[in-house]
Amino acid sequence: MHYFSSPFKLGILGGGQLGKMLLYETRKWDIQTKVMDASPEAPCKIACNEFVLGSLMDFDAVYTFGKDVDVLTIEIENVNVDALEKLEDEGVKVLPPTKTLRTIQNKATQKLFYTDNGIPTAPFSRFAYTSEIEDSIANGGLQLPFVWKSAQFGYDGQGVKVVRTKEDLNGLPNVECIAEEMVDFKHELAVIVARNTSGEVCTYPVVEMEFHPEANQVEYVICPARISEAVANKATEVALKVSDKMEQVGLLAVELFQTQDDGILVNEVAPRPHNSGHYSIEASYTNQFEQHIRAILGLPLGNTDSKVAGIMVNLVGAEGHTGDVVYENMETILKMDGVTPHIYGKKQTRPFRKMGHVTIVDKDIKRAREVAQHVKETIKVTSK
Amino acid sequence: MHYFSSPFKLGILGGGQLGKMLLYETRKWDIQTKVMDASPEAPCKIACNEFVLGSLMDFDAVYTFGKDVDVLTIEIENVNVDALEKLEDEGVKVLPPTKTLRTIQNKATQKLFYTDNGIPTAPFSRFAYTSEIEDSIANGGLQLPFVWKSAQFGYDGQGVKVVRTKEDLNGLPNVECIAEEMVDFKHELAVIVARNTSGEVCTYPVVEMEFHPEANQVEYVICPARISEAVANKATEVALKVSDKMEQVGLLAVELFQTQDDGILVNEVAPRPHNSGHYSIEASYTNQFEQHIRAILGLPLGNTDSKVAGIMVNLVGAEGHTGDVVYENMETILKMDGVTPHIYGKKQTRPFRKMGHVTIVDKDIKRAREVAQHVKETIKVTSK
Repeated sequence: MHYFSSPFKLGILGGGQLGKMLLYETRKWDIQTKVMDASPEAPCKIACNEFVLGSLMDFDAVYTFGKDVDVLTIEIENVNVDALEKLEDEGVKVLPPTKTLRTIQNKATQKLFYTDNGIPTAPFSRFAYTSEIEDSIANGGLQLPFVWKSAQFGYDGQGVKVVRTKEDLNGLPNVECIAEEMVDFKHELAVIVARNTSGEVCTYPVVEMEFHPEANQVEYVICPARISEAVANKATEVALKVSDKMEQVGLLAVELFQTQDDGILVNEVAPRPHNSGHYSIEASYTNQFEQHIRAILGLPLGNTDSKVAGIMVNLVGAEGHTGDVVYENMETILKMDGVTPHIYGKKQTRPFRKMGHVTIVDKDIKRAREVAQHVKETIKVTSK
Repeated sequence: MHYFSSPFKLGILGGGQLGKMLLYETRKWDIQTKVMDASPEAPCKIACNEFVLGSLMDFDAVYTFGKDVDVLTIEIENVNVDALEKLEDEGVKVLPPTKTLRTIQNKATQKLFYTDNGIPTAPFSRFAYTSEIEDSIANGGLQLPFVWKSAQFGYDGQGVKVVRTKEDLNGLPNVECIAEEMVDFKHELAVIVARNTSGEVCTYPVVEMEFHPEANQVEYVICPARISEAVANKATEVALKVSDKMEQVGLLAVELFQTQDDGILVNEVAPRPHNSGHYSIEASYTNQFEQHIRAILGLPLGNTDSKVAGIMVNLVGAEGHTGDVVYENMETILKMDGVTPHIYGKKQTRPFRKMGHVTIVDKDIKRAREVAQHVKETIKVTSK
């Protein structure tokens, strides 16, 4: 596909922050883009060539949107896959392929796929309704504690809850869900795999994710992960297997657990650029967004090595603050070497809302981690 | 100025490629922008918050544009400075300051400024009209060969001509101009100086520029320059002196000659991001565009060190081709490690037109230079 010279249109479903960062890359290469989002304030509204207001879960909206693009991709999994399948049948290049998206979109289906394909993952039970769980506990089929996850539409900590007592089930939506055994893990890791339309594959270095204990959100992403080469190789191998079996095209972010005995279990995956890859903008030879574009356009994949160590700190709304956002102490962190904030542009903050991120790079990962700690303790996302 | 949280508007005069790359940085930090350009196809038209069609040389257009912004900057020197002065008097932060812009805008004024301030530069004569030059040659006041430069509005090789015989004067516009002694230089160098509104200053590493012999355009920009530390220090010192004496705020790109006896002469300057700094996007801890934003917003300046060596190759229209652009062999260069093309998005090509650039990074500058050569010999900007 000679998209550099011919009329070519890339469609992106979803106009949020991930789409916004994809648009940096499409603008760099003068790729024409069309983006759809339900919000008139979507970050992608400016910087794409054509913006369409529409619901990503609506069949007609998605079908109409995708009909006149050459390649159609997503920046969020919550999209109408029936419409994508119709477009795929009619010859639009939908990437990730709808088959892959169906496998991933439903967490129960996703987990079953791992077990069916010999991919190591935490044991789990599947329920048509949350209400069935109490019976299962009562008859001894299910042990406390476990991790409850809704099968569909979970995002960023919502739709996931650690259940230690039966009371913790109160208030959970009565939906299709899974109950997963809790993993006694040493580290949470992630590997981003890229595969292009010609089948060329590459992987990013394994990253380490440090989580906030309560909010179930990532606080630090550390690249490279501070693990042994043996464990890194195993993690990479498992991630490659997932990508291969799922026949993913584009990026696949694979979140993994390193168990106490250095085993690797797959947690979950996302078929798109991912928070665990944001460090790559400043740290890698090819950032994940450029890589996703290369992959879905059938271009050669780029070098995934790091130029420098990179640590990403998420900027989330501080507890106790809701309203017009204020970023405190930005000038203080901007004095620090190798520190690059990214402000997503959301006008309103609330506790734990993802408002941006800060990447800290340094040739020395220890120093980067120290600076990252300092950044985290300095910058505050509060309200007026 | 707490622009991260308060309503704040940055105005940019000029909506071309430099503005487009500034907008990557404003979008990264959610800075609201307003851009003016005479062309409805200006690259900045998308990705800014507000786009205004208007002539940058028109007093009323510039004055009206600048009245409601907090900081007003430029991406090109050809702007109406009278309007900027009025805005400055009325309290708009114009950066670069109009005083600096006036010094630079007219090449004769610029050269006089160097000599008046003890800044080393090639000897020159100033003429109100090109037609006066023949007389000066006739009476022995001016020796051939020399470099003719129009005093105003030269850009990218236009408005500059090497005059070896009187016939070379034919066809030159009859305007205010200078005739500069030709420098027998060893290298052409550039140093970008950044100064913020608080007076904090920093400099980028000295870069080397290899020029195309005929078109008077840069072919390779090499960072770091392959020169001795002593010469690099001298070049940096001279550049700092220029920035200081001119009281520049924001970036100042200083183009220099290294003479055969390792002396440093100032060629010319630009008070904005510059072609010689594009390598910084992939190679530096703080790219020049982010640095310019930091400087004019009064934020702390960022680290100017390089993560990796960087070489920029300009992509210019091939000779003999005019029309709808075709980029040949892009996929071949995309296979090479550390290679990042930038396509500016101009639909029409013509010989020597700046259509984009390619940056090659590598830990080893020798390897980067080899790959850069290969890129240059492979990629072709032709027409349909």
